[in-house]
Amino acid sequence: MTDGPLSGLLVVDLTRVLAGPYCTMVLADLGARVIKVETPGTGDDSRHIGPFIADKSAYFMSINRGKESIALDLKADGDRAIFEDLLARADILVENYRPGVMEKLNYGWDVLHARFPRLIYAAASGFGHTGPYRTRAAYDMVVQGMGGIMSITGHPGGPPTRVGTSVGDITAGLFATIGINAALYHRETTGLGMKIDVAMLDCQIAILENAIARYAATGVAPGPLGARHPSITPFAAYQAQDGWIIIAAGNNGLFEKLCGVLGRPDIFTDPDFITNDLRTTNADRLAHEMEFTLRHDTVSQWMEKLDAAGVPNGPINDVQQALNDPHVRARNMVVTVDDPVTGPLEIAGNPIKLSAFEDPATRGAVPDLDEQRAAILEWLGR
Amino acid sequence: MTDGPLSGLLVVDLTRVLAGPYCTMVLADLGARVIKVETPGTGDDSRHIGPFIADKSAYFMSINRGKESIALDLKADGDRAIFEDLLARADILVENYRPGVMEKLNYGWDVLHARFPRLIYAAASGFGHTGPYRTRAAYDMVVQGMGGIMSITGHPGGPPTRVGTSVGDITAGLFATIGINAALYHRETTGLGMKIDVAMLDCQIAILENAIARYAATGVAPGPLGARHPSITPFAAYQAQDGWIIIAAGNNGLFEKLCGVLGRPDIFTDPDFITNDLRTTNADRLAHEMEFTLRHDTVSQWMEKLDAAGVPNGPINDVQQALNDPHVRARNMVVTVDDPVTGPLEIAGNPIKLSAFEDPATRGAVPDLDEQRAAILEWLGR
Repeated sequence: MTDGPLSGLLVVDLTRVLAGPYCTMVLADLGARVIKVETPGTGDDSRHIGPFIADKSAYFMSINRGKESIALDLKADGDRAIFEDLLARADILVENYRPGVMEKLNYGWDVLHARFPRLIYAAASGFGHTGPYRTRAAYDMVVQGMGGIMSITGHPGGPPTRVGTSVGDITAGLFATIGINAALYHRETTGLGMKIDVAMLDCQIAILENAIARYAATGVAPGPLGARHPSITPFAAYQAQDGWIIIAAGNNGLFEKLCGVLGRPDIFTDPDFITNDLRTTNADRLAHEMEFTLRHDTVSQWMEKLDAAGVPNGPINDVQQALNDPHVRARNMVVTVDDPVTGPLEIAGNPIKLSAFEDPATRGAVPDLDEQRAAILEWLGR
Repeated sequence: MTDGPLSGLLVVDLTRVLAGPYCTMVLADLGARVIKVETPGTGDDSRHIGPFIADKSAYFMSINRGKESIALDLKADGDRAIFEDLLARADILVENYRPGVMEKLNYGWDVLHARFPRLIYAAASGFGHTGPYRTRAAYDMVVQGMGGIMSITGHPGGPPTRVGTSVGDITAGLFATIGINAALYHRETTGLGMKIDVAMLDCQIAILENAIARYAATGVAPGPLGARHPSITPFAAYQAQDGWIIIAAGNNGLFEKLCGVLGRPDIFTDPDFITNDLRTTNADRLAHEMEFTLRHDTVSQWMEKLDAAGVPNGPINDVQQALNDPHVRARNMVVTVDDPVTGPLEIAGNPIKLSAFEDPATRGAVPDLDEQRAAILEWLGR
């Protein structure tokens, strides 16, 4: 296990696929012991989702490193007794079932809180445990569509565009993790756990940020803007000789430096571009003027010149380039999980760097289904 | 102030614009008292970023509700003494300066930890406090480009596409908040604070999820896929008679139900579509077949039929539709801030719903620059 601020805490983890497992991965990265309780026979659904390496799901491996696994049938008395032994020792229970499933198993919050008053119970679901849609199923794609983020991602007049990663699941996992940690702190005073109810759709609303402000200010729902920022200009992807470059000149001082690097004082003094608001109104013409000059040199040449002038910029990296960037490597954001079947697998590291703890470059192994059964039962004294 | 698990804690907040203020907003939503320490005269840069309502930044208002403001010049002795009085009472300091700025002010971690051993210090920056790019400036747009998410967002062969919200800032704010809460819990045992160093670029790597697994499994960097999931099919936006509908039939059982709703048993039995992997390989032809039928009815007609069959689906809402969705309202995800100048403003609520605390429908007022100066000085006994 990783040593961290949550060392000594036990998480009982009923979660599957992404939002819940992402949450318990972060808890494990912070030092908690995580015991995955999986369905006998099949286990976490994501064990069967590709891509596969040597018949093992790389997807499952990437978010379940350093966890333990026990297969329990929560409808069978013997396994329920084991599960309740685990809960009696647990600090945190996390589940991402559809609302109502825990109640059907007689493990709803009221029951759990009465029997295990210190237990913190976090539920991550598509629509949450209250509200008219609470019984409906949701996946990332559904909440990306309903929550508004797809309406502001993509190009004007173009087809719908999904955010390329599952931000519906991941943000729910992050907000649940925040709630769990705050509940842990609070429990130190009260001795009592609490229930944390996080809905994926709610989290999509919570990350809309300035799109809500723009709607509030204008009464008009904002649309997609391609690769540019809605209210800061120039702050976008621009075409250079051999590809695209990101330039983010977020204020007048940076815009002046940018015009200097481009050798285009005419842009800086153009009345259409003298304030950020005017530059945003005239963003297309400004992009045209900038690209007229940017096309004469390569992305790496412009990056060097912009860096020297202190103008924020960068390439558009693909995943391979991003993972092999020397800074990303220096920050230990690519870590290794060793596996007897697949060999070493590189996965994302933990972005929470803490002065009080090491940030190991390798992570604990990924459990096979039910792998730690004997050890867990022995630990429970069974 | 909101009552919550962090009630009684004091956050001294040196942050500007988005990543840091988003973090301290979540801390305030969880009950902490947040005192913004702003630059005299100008204040938080985002006070000057549009959109504006009655000359007040709606952008600033949306992420600074319920905070207090005091303007302090951290280079002037008198103001430094006030700042240090605040730190002596603070539990948490959050800043999102470029690395090195705190050291120049003689408020680097070593100095702070020696003088205020219980103080938790969180720094959110573009590239973090270590690694070769640590002194470079970054904005959301730069880390979206460098971190790989833009390479998997958008349409194949199309121009670069930015995620429509600032996920670079927001995810850094969320990971910093997790680190702060874990450090609070840990401090209960040790009595000591710690430093939390969160880099926006690191967080972009941390949310790439299955794109990393796909690269690891194939050695090929994945590209953008428009509005469909890379490894689950059908799980995308499809065209109905009057617009787009999201359909997420994530397994064989749901696919069978979907084919039943469409009245297309031929799709279900087509050898090209009998497994999820085959459906993903033949996603374009499957979309074509589905849309051939979907075009005969409207989005709302299909939603009703899919709901009845239990197939996850939903509309692509714009921001107005998302904010006015009855479920979003029922979950209290649109809250109101009252302001004497702008009148009531609707902003996003807190997605962390806790059994132990109320989730108020209104939030505290947004401070004018230096608004709480007199009250804070009196509280400090000055």
